[in-house]
Order: sequence, then structure tokens, then C-alpha cells
Amino acid sequence: MGVPERVKLVDVGPRDGLQNEPRAVALDVKIGLIDRLATAGITTIEAGAFVSSKWVPQMADTAAVLAGIDRRPGVSYPVLVPNRNGFEAALAAGVGRVGGLDEIAVFGAVSETFSRRNINCSIAESLDRFAPVAAAARDRGIRVRGYLSCVLGCPYEGAVAPDRVARVAARLAALGCDELSLGDTIGTGTPGKARAMIEAVAAEVPRERLAVHFHDTYGQALANIYAALEAGIAIVDSAVAGLGGCPYAKGATGNVATEDVLYLLDGLGIETGVAMDGLLTASRFIAQALGRPPASKAALALTTGAAS
Amino acid sequence: MGVPERVKLVDVGPRDGLQNEPRAVALDVKIGLIDRLATAGITTIEAGAFVSSKWVPQMADTAAVLAGIDRRPGVSYPVLVPNRNGFEAALAAGVGRVGGLDEIAVFGAVSETFSRRNINCSIAESLDRFAPVAAAARDRGIRVRGYLSCVLGCPYEGAVAPDRVARVAARLAALGCDELSLGDTIGTGTPGKARAMIEAVAAEVPRERLAVHFHDTYGQALANIYAALEAGIAIVDSAVAGLGGCPYAKGATGNVATEDVLYLLDGLGIETGVAMDGLLTASRFIAQALGRPPASKAALALTTGAAS
Repeated sequence: MGVPERVKLVDVGPRDGLQNEPRAVALDVKIGLIDRLATAGITTIEAGAFVSSKWVPQMADTAAVLAGIDRRPGVSYPVLVPNRNGFEAALAAGVGRVGGLDEIAVFGAVSETFSRRNINCSIAESLDRFAPVAAAARDRGIRVRGYLSCVLGCPYEGAVAPDRVARVAARLAALGCDELSLGDTIGTGTPGKARAMIEAVAAEVPRERLAVHFHDTYGQALANIYAALEAGIAIVDSAVAGLGGCPYAKGATGNVATEDVLYLLDGLGIETGVAMDGLLTASRFIAQALGRPPASKAALALTTGAAS
Repeated sequence: MGVPERVKLVDVGPRDGLQNEPRAVALDVKIGLIDRLATAGITTIEAGAFVSSKWVPQMADTAAVLAGIDRRPGVSYPVLVPNRNGFEAALAAGVGRVGGLDEIAVFGAVSETFSRRNINCSIAESLDRFAPVAAAARDRGIRVRGYLSCVLGCPYEGAVAPDRVARVAARLAALGCDELSLGDTIGTGTPGKARAMIEAVAAEVPRERLAVHFHDTYGQALANIYAALEAGIAIVDSAVAGLGGCPYAKGATGNVATEDVLYLLDGLGIETGVAMDGLLTASRFIAQALGRPPASKAALALTTGAAS
């Protein structure tokens, strides 16, 4: 199978990225980042999360973010909702009622230990908790994106069998997820294992509903994405400037940088609708706000004119 | 075609890497690095260059390096020789006479402008200059490795056609190169173009004599290596700790880090004979000597226990 002709890039930087920054980022910076990503041509931008501000203070202003962004036609701004309370808060913020706010995301682990430690319940319990949220979203015509974490390895349990990922994926799809994002949370995946995992999931859920979400902790993300493209996957998550992990900190892990992914896709001749110039504008904007260079080799090379 | 069962890793850090460091590295550090790479299981370690010390002061002590290393059975320590003078110097340093010193490397560009600016002669002239060196090496049973630079892009000419790479490769092979290393000098390659270039060259030179040599300037190296493995390439150049480019400097370019490549190959179940622990020992050693962290995500993650 060849690589897809067109790929949808999902930028998770404003949520998955900034949520994992040590310090909260100002409201106007979040809004400025999201608007610049939309200007660059990104059509799905994870804008925030309706979660406990006690546990995740970085996302406490998500309603204000949704109110402040310049919503563009054709752009979706999904928000993460962990439960019914989060869903109600999302509805109150306009999700399901105003343009662009037509998508939510939910989160499930494929590792029991990770699930218990991260969201304090079993996998089955997390799916039960999510079921009414998904049903309510569907009733309102709201699209649902399901994240699966630890699909290629768990920090507590180690290797994860592909059929376990496939089982959880099948349940999330049955509960109403329109799209499933397969997350290599700890970044230990390599292309052969990624491919095997994708094939196991694709036996349960149509390939066109699958996204991949790689972290570049061990430098493997782009090789894994290439393998996923070869497996026919056409939705790729990434974070502008590699947000979510500081490359200069010990033990930091980060999302793969959108700039590096776009460089790959452009090189492969795959259409994305995203312009590198605009993406670099967004990258520089958030890098300046955070006071450090983007964690993206392509961004650094293109910005400094390293070799061209 | 599946990926190869076994891959030979060629560590170019002590030459291609250290040559591009702004400051010369002490003799005992070079020797310590080479010996640690051999201990890790690397069987081809580029040890130095017999070039003008006026132009490349970092390599002025190559004869002393060859005299000082603990040559291991089964390990080859190739040196770069640009011309007849360099070859004579290599012979004087024991190349062709003592164990391990059984291999030289020569260098040719596939871009006329790059050739003129880098070695001050045309491609044809560079090949003519190299011919007697190759013949003399073959007479003495010395293996010859040929580097081709700019195979996926030239800083002056831009894109490079695969058939041009294939023509230069065919000439180098005809002149007696046992192995050809295809170098993406500026790091702009992506997997589709890499694959097309490899296929063009493989039509002229048997695939098992081809190595790939990627720079990670735009973050694409591991994706390109994975594509090369899928094309049946079983020799991969890399530099421990990503030597040859500082990730914190503007416009720096670097060799792909051996640690990241080994993580990929281990994950794919490909045999290399190289132990990650030993490689990390070499990586830490040179990183301490240079006073900066290794430019390798795998090394950083494995050393700090980021996620496991």
C-alpha cells in the first residue's frame, strides 16, 4: 500500500502540549497560538480541556479560550472532556452550539495500571464513565475523538499486546467515537511494532477513522509516522514547536513537532493544506512566549537557514 | 521487501563528527572514544583523516590516534584520504600493514558546484584524482569506502536527480570502491526521495555494497533510515552522540545519533552486535569531554530514565 495522498494534521499543542508545560501560559498567548495555527491551515486544533482546575490548572481558562479565538470556517477546535461534568462545562462554553466547537475528545488507557494511576479507575470503569458522555454528544451532533494512551508501551507494565489495543479501540468505537487517536505515550514504539499495532486495530475499526499520536522521547516518532502512512493512516497528531516536553530538561518527553511532520509530508508530496511559513510563524510565537527555541529540528533549520 | 535481519553500523563520530566540532578534541579523548565504541560492539569506526592540517586541524593527530587505539580483532578503523599524499601518510601510519587498519575512505560529490566549492575541482577531476589511490589501495588489499555527498540535495544547486547519483556511484564502484556511502549532507531528504535515489543507485551497484548516511538537520534521518532498510540497505552510518553538529547552536547540522539508530534497529529486531549499554558509555564519555549533552533523544531518555 502506498502512502495516502492527503493527510489531516491535528495540532494538539494548545492542549496536550501546554498542559504539560510546568507553568501556565497566559490566555492571550493561547488564543494567539490557536489563531496562528488556523491561519497556517491546520483544520483541527485541540483548544483546551474541561478538567479539574485543581489537578490541571494550565487548562482552567478553556472557556475563555473558546470565547476568544477567531473561529474559522472549516476549522474544528476539539476540547478534552473526561466525564459528564466536563461535558456540561463544554456545553456551557458553546460546544455544540457555535461554529467550530463541534468536537470533544475523551481519553482511555489500554493499560490497567496506567489507567488506575492516571485516572484512578479501571479501563472498564473509564469506558463506562465515558459512555453517557458519548451518547449525549452524539445526540447533539458533536463529533467525538477518542484517545488511547500507552498503545506501544506502558511505563508500569512495559510492552502492550496489539490485541489489547484493538479490544479497547473496538469498545471506544462502539461507544460512538468517530475517530480514534492511537497514542505512544512514552515514545518507546518503533516502526515494526507500530505497524503491527495499527493492523490489529484496523481489523476492528476502519483505518480511515484512525489517527496516530507519537511522542519523540526516543527520537522514533517520524519513523513511526512514516510506517503509519505506509499502513494507510491519514490522520496525524503533533504539537507545534514540540510542545509538551522541554528538550533541555532531564527526562522530558514531548509530542512530535508539527513542523517536522509537515516537512516529512511535504517531502513525500502528501497534501495537508498547511503552509510551512504560517506554521513557523505559530512556532516562533509560542517559542518566544515560552522563552526557549522550538523543539523541532525542521523549525530550527528553516528559521536559521541552516543548509539552504 | 522486508527489512534486513542484520545491519552493520558504521560510526563516523571520531572523524566526520569531531572534524566538524569547532574545537579540536584531545588525542586521549579520541582514543578513549574509539575504544569505547569498539567495546560497545561497533565493528567499523571511522578513526580519522589524512588531510591537510592547515585546512582540517581537528584531524592533525590521526597517525597518533591509530597508534594509540586498542585495535580489536574483527574491527575496522577506516581513515579518510583525499588524495595520493593522504594515502602515503596513511600507509606510513600502518594502514595496510597492521590489524584493523585495512580500510580507507574517499570522498566525492554528486553536485558540480559543491565539488568545486568543497574540494576545488570538478566531479570528473575528483574521480581522476582518486583513481590511482584506489588502485594502490587494491594492490595492497586495502578496502575502499567511497562517500558520495549531497545525494538528496545540494546547498548550491538544490534538488539532485537520482540518476546523477547513480552515475557517480557507478564510476566510484568501477574505480574499486568496495562500499559506497550515500550521504544526505544537508539533511533535506525525505523517505520517498531517499527510496527513489537508492533504487536508482541499486540499478548500478549491488545493494549489499550500499550504505546510507543521513544528517538529522530537519529531523528526517530516522524516517529515511527506515525507508532505506525497507529498500534492503544493511549498512548505516551514524555518529555516537550525534557528533558533528551542536543542537543548541544556530544553523547547526548533525549526523544522526548512533544511539537513536540502534534504538530503531533493536526495536525492529534487527541484529547489530552492538550493546546499547556500551554505546551509552561511549556517548556519555564524549559528551562529558565536549561539555554538553549528547544530541540523541534515545541517549537522553535512556540515561535519565525518562519514561521507563
